[in-house]
Amino acid sequence: MAASSCQNPFRISANLVGSSRFLLPKVELSVVNFPPNVEFSRLGFYRSLTCKEYGGHVHCSSNTDGAVNEEALTPILDMVDNPMNLKNLSLKELKQLADDIRTELSIMSKTNKSFRPSLSVVELAVAIHHVFHAPVDKILWDMEDQTYPHKLLTGRRACLNKSGQVDDLSSYACRNEYDPFGAGHGCSSISSGLGMAVARDIKGKRDRIVSVISNETTMAGQVYEAMSNAGYLDSNMVVILNDRHHSSNPKLDQAPKASINAVSSTLSKLQSSQFFRKFREVAKVLTKRIGRGMHEWAAKIDEYARGMVGPPGSTLFEELGLYYIGPVDGHNIEDLLCVLHEVASLDSMGPVLVHVVTKEEYAVEDNQMGKVSEECVEGPFTIEAAPIRSRPQTYSDHFAKALITEAEIDEDIVVVHAGMGMETSFRALKDKLRDRFFDVGMAEQHAVTFSAGLACGGLKPFCIIPASFLQRAYDQVVHDVDRQKIPVRFVLTSAGLVGSDGATHSGAFDITFMSCLPNMIVMAPSDEIELARMVSTAADIEDRPVCFRYPRGAIASMDPNLHLREPIEVGRGRLLVEGKDIALLGFGSMVQNCLRAHAILSNMGIDVTVADARFCKPLDIKLVRMLCKNHKFLITVEEGSIGGFGAHVAQFISLDGLLDAGIKWRPITLPDNYIEGAQPNDQLAAAGLTGNHIAATALNLLGRTRDALLLMC
Amino acid sequence: MAASSCQNPFRISANLVGSSRFLLPKVELSVVNFPPNVEFSRLGFYRSLTCKEYGGHVHCSSNTDGAVNEEALTPILDMVDNPMNLKNLSLKELKQLADDIRTELSIMSKTNKSFRPSLSVVELAVAIHHVFHAPVDKILWDMEDQTYPHKLLTGRRACLNKSGQVDDLSSYACRNEYDPFGAGHGCSSISSGLGMAVARDIKGKRDRIVSVISNETTMAGQVYEAMSNAGYLDSNMVVILNDRHHSSNPKLDQAPKASINAVSSTLSKLQSSQFFRKFREVAKVLTKRIGRGMHEWAAKIDEYARGMVGPPGSTLFEELGLYYIGPVDGHNIEDLLCVLHEVASLDSMGPVLVHVVTKEEYAVEDNQMGKVSEECVEGPFTIEAAPIRSRPQTYSDHFAKALITEAEIDEDIVVVHAGMGMETSFRALKDKLRDRFFDVGMAEQHAVTFSAGLACGGLKPFCIIPASFLQRAYDQVVHDVDRQKIPVRFVLTSAGLVGSDGATHSGAFDITFMSCLPNMIVMAPSDEIELARMVSTAADIEDRPVCFRYPRGAIASMDPNLHLREPIEVGRGRLLVEGKDIALLGFGSMVQNCLRAHAILSNMGIDVTVADARFCKPLDIKLVRMLCKNHKFLITVEEGSIGGFGAHVAQFISLDGLLDAGIKWRPITLPDNYIEGAQPNDQLAAAGLTGNHIAATALNLLGRTRDALLLMC
Repeated sequence: MAASSCQNPFRISANLVGSSRFLLPKVELSVVNFPPNVEFSRLGFYRSLTCKEYGGHVHCSSNTDGAVNEEALTPILDMVDNPMNLKNLSLKELKQLADDIRTELSIMSKTNKSFRPSLSVVELAVAIHHVFHAPVDKILWDMEDQTYPHKLLTGRRACLNKSGQVDDLSSYACRNEYDPFGAGHGCSSISSGLGMAVARDIKGKRDRIVSVISNETTMAGQVYEAMSNAGYLDSNMVVILNDRHHSSNPKLDQAPKASINAVSSTLSKLQSSQFFRKFREVAKVLTKRIGRGMHEWAAKIDEYARGMVGPPGSTLFEELGLYYIGPVDGHNIEDLLCVLHEVASLDSMGPVLVHVVTKEEYAVEDNQMGKVSEECVEGPFTIEAAPIRSRPQTYSDHFAKALITEAEIDEDIVVVHAGMGMETSFRALKDKLRDRFFDVGMAEQHAVTFSAGLACGGLKPFCIIPASFLQRAYDQVVHDVDRQKIPVRFVLTSAGLVGSDGATHSGAFDITFMSCLPNMIVMAPSDEIELARMVSTAADIEDRPVCFRYPRGAIASMDPNLHLREPIEVGRGRLLVEGKDIALLGFGSMVQNCLRAHAILSNMGIDVTVADARFCKPLDIKLVRMLCKNHKFLITVEEGSIGGFGAHVAQFISLDGLLDAGIKWRPITLPDNYIEGAQPNDQLAAAGLTGNHIAATALNLLGRTRDALLLMC
Repeated sequence: MAASSCQNPFRISANLVGSSRFLLPKVELSVVNFPPNVEFSRLGFYRSLTCKEYGGHVHCSSNTDGAVNEEALTPILDMVDNPMNLKNLSLKELKQLADDIRTELSIMSKTNKSFRPSLSVVELAVAIHHVFHAPVDKILWDMEDQTYPHKLLTGRRACLNKSGQVDDLSSYACRNEYDPFGAGHGCSSISSGLGMAVARDIKGKRDRIVSVISNETTMAGQVYEAMSNAGYLDSNMVVILNDRHHSSNPKLDQAPKASINAVSSTLSKLQSSQFFRKFREVAKVLTKRIGRGMHEWAAKIDEYARGMVGPPGSTLFEELGLYYIGPVDGHNIEDLLCVLHEVASLDSMGPVLVHVVTKEEYAVEDNQMGKVSEECVEGPFTIEAAPIRSRPQTYSDHFAKALITEAEIDEDIVVVHAGMGMETSFRALKDKLRDRFFDVGMAEQHAVTFSAGLACGGLKPFCIIPASFLQRAYDQVVHDVDRQKIPVRFVLTSAGLVGSDGATHSGAFDITFMSCLPNMIVMAPSDEIELARMVSTAADIEDRPVCFRYPRGAIASMDPNLHLREPIEVGRGRLLVEGKDIALLGFGSMVQNCLRAHAILSNMGIDVTVADARFCKPLDIKLVRMLCKNHKFLITVEEGSIGGFGAHVAQFISLDGLLDAGIKWRPITLPDNYIEGAQPNDQLAAAGLTGNHIAATALNLLGRTRDALLLMC
């Protein structure tokens, strides 16, 4: 299919119909070196903008002191309901649109959500939607926090503007018309895009696939697997690397960055030109005929001729089989349009990687934004700076404190940190441990085996990974650690439900998939004091792996006795309240909710036992036996999926004959569905894990169904 | 630390003491360009070889017709009890040693095990052990099937020669004196090696780390994560890439291979020379001072000057931060020694990658080996070739047959295959589906998300991965498939215990970690007819993901009705035998053992019900209710860990009140330990999953403990 020419009927008709002042004659485009072969004819449904769509949206934002601002703050953005509305905009209007989006994000960031990472991709999103035709063309983003310009351009502005409604904000992760694949843990967009590209080829369709990745995701192994496979399968797709300069991750910034200058700009245009790409295509076909030896040299000459003027990293992608174009200035819409048009207009060229260099801090008119966002991005506050402030202390703060105490005693302690970002709480840990703190970024698989290696070398690694991200390293946990009984101490942060981050970041399955491993010790603290004790416990265990999980939220209480070093005996739970009617056996943070249920039930005259299991594995079988023998009813409670703590208790009391002896056991676990983003309390209620729910279960067991119903009203 | 000179006292003393004919004067070494800076002084305990150790071992192999062969087949190997014995061998002797190892592997392969992949690394293993000082220096292999020369050189020859004792053979995966890290699922050696290197630096030790990877493992993402982190941390370690030319994986062979010639040989020697490496070291330090811009160009010039004459792939490693040296002819001991000596002799140079090109088929005297091995490597036989032969048909054969039948009806069906290798059974499937069969190798993460992309594109992907390897893609299963309810059909091969492959390849945890996912349908066939029906069932499910697991072994029976297309209703189990005393509810292949238990118990006058659950999720709750209501005892049986099928049944019967109503439930699962490699029946016995075990559990429940004891005697 040849690229369409300037005589595109749709463009002309658009010019005729459009009557707004923004619809300047397209001559302007050619003046500013706009590529002539823009391919608007591809989709039959390109529609003209009418005056109605253009006019009259006056933005009433919360920062206008309640008064209606007569002048539109975001004039172009107001006219964009869906990506089709972008097609006829001039370069000047597109630039204005980018400014509008920045303004909008700036206004939105005054609420509780940070949109800072999205600032880097404003121009990129505009350019992509101008060149490609979503939703027919598939635009895949793999870092959720960079998707907001894309959302604003694809009809979800109203939804995003409802401040405080976190469930709307978290909708990024869901598939819908404009999001052909949900962004969850990052690094999925090339694999899924390649699948769609291959399916398209098999089905004989002609839509285009654009996968946007960022430099964080290039740390993850899956991206290399995917690029290598894309190079091998040679399906048409465009991968855009958003190479962000940003200060939040010093590791990324230590690597040499591509510098954008006049030469590189010209170069990337040349690289993306049809001539250059056809040259390579011919070389490819040729070498398939003349065999390997020649191929190597032809490829090399092409690669290196381009590589010598390209930035570091360029040949890496070439080696993996992607045609590299770049670097392109990600804030220069003109360059972006030029390169993307070229890339979009050619068929059967295999996968292409466009290297776009952007800045997070790129000019925002309202400069306060940066400061507001900083806090939102990085978490509430640092440990050292201000221990007592309005926001509550978190479990992570206390964990870091406890581990620093341990590390002061034992200099073999090292920390490996992996995941999408780093909580502020761990900064103090990093500063304290310095060369003994290893942040490997989104490379969880490596983090786990690397920790195993550290342990083999005689150190005591604590491997900190959010519970849901440990899923990415499960095989390494099984084979490299557990099977070999290597003492790695896994610290699973963000265990259980995680509020606004929703289902993608919930640690729902970790109790289940960790406690089935033969050598693993699985524990969970019920409060911050227990957490500190478990840090000591883990430090002392040297003959096998151990893991403990703690939730994201605020701590249960404050206690000054944190600094006493009191390791817990492995496999020893504790009795918190002694009763006789019914026993509640909680695991981890759910012990607090058991205590809440206890308070409710006490008021109703029911005598409740509450125990803290502490260990899912090994179970405190003495404690469980005692609870079974002294009670008629046993309720196990955990903030985890089926197959975890409850299953271990059930298996034990079955094999021990306690079930036969008459104990009535009820498991309370996370329900069999994903809990979407919401306020933590709403999530717990949706999951049926509040104190009320536990109390209601107890009342039902005791035959007081009416009371149970009343409790839940 | 400077490299030691030729006046090494240990070498001289060795020359004086050694009296064997193999101990030629070291002059020979210098003649053949042996590097002068061999570093024997590093370890204090280098010991001289005595005559006793050299003489008299006459090899009695099984192919000598029982007669004792007077001439030693493997004269040098006979003298090598541990790597220390290699140190004083001349180049000629080292070559002879390599030949001896080939002979030995050839003899060993006449038993039931293939050693073909190990043939590629014979010279490499000899060179490594000559240059490095195991066990002080850590030698890490990450493909278990390439470790046999290493094992022969490190005192495990006797153990390997006990033919048929598979448990000895599988000992590769265990940590021991000479194996600082177990090789399980591949691609762990760089991560673990880096951990050891960092630990060494922190502890102030001076041992060296050598990680050997192969071109299969370079498909896995973890390797890139690890290399990138190694480049960043800049710890001293040597990564050796064994780049095998082999015909068993055409995908690997399609990539252009480095060709070895006189120029590349000289080049790699030059690259590894101290001068060249020091040049770069200086450049590194320099650029840290003068800043980034300069660094980029200096690095580029170094890289490309070397890159232009290097093979494809070389710059990839450079980009990741490893100093590339190669390609080296992996069968030329002289070159290997030269390069490895250079690499070993320098400190503080950061990670180095030595690219070694080898051939699997490299000259074996006894040429029959190739043929014998081929069968062993690839599995029993192909489907089409000979349906009735002495070996039993496998589940995989029948799965492939059933899927071909489905694919003939429905042309949307595509197959994605991932894992360490491919079973022969899938060859026919590959031939049949051609462009619809995607083998991505050891890139399980990509395989899963790629399948999700294919499904989003409107195809029906069957994603075939061995159960234990799916662990490597668990996060992708959770986030990219299950949470988005994308209809990917997971086919988990090698589920449960896997005989000689032992714990590393056992699919022990898949029922547990798959059935806790909210949207996943989890099933398992009890025989090959059910397997075919589940293939149809999976093909028909279009609104959510589904998985089914089947064991590695031979099928339960033969039935001609395989080709009837009979999908199963989702969530519907089946009653096989109706009794009244006790109910056995099996999942997957364990249904067969339940039937065995039924036969045993029937003979003892016990009336047993046997049911096939088929689905772990959704459970057939009607069936379970019926079993609970009509029986006093319910035993659930699965070949999987705790937290799986039994846990789901327990949770249901608890919440449904059936447990309270008096049913006595007993779960039979895999025990809480790893089952090492053994004959399948022995493994099942060790796991307590035989028909006898199930029958004994039933007898115990019925109070007939004496009968139960007798049964287990």
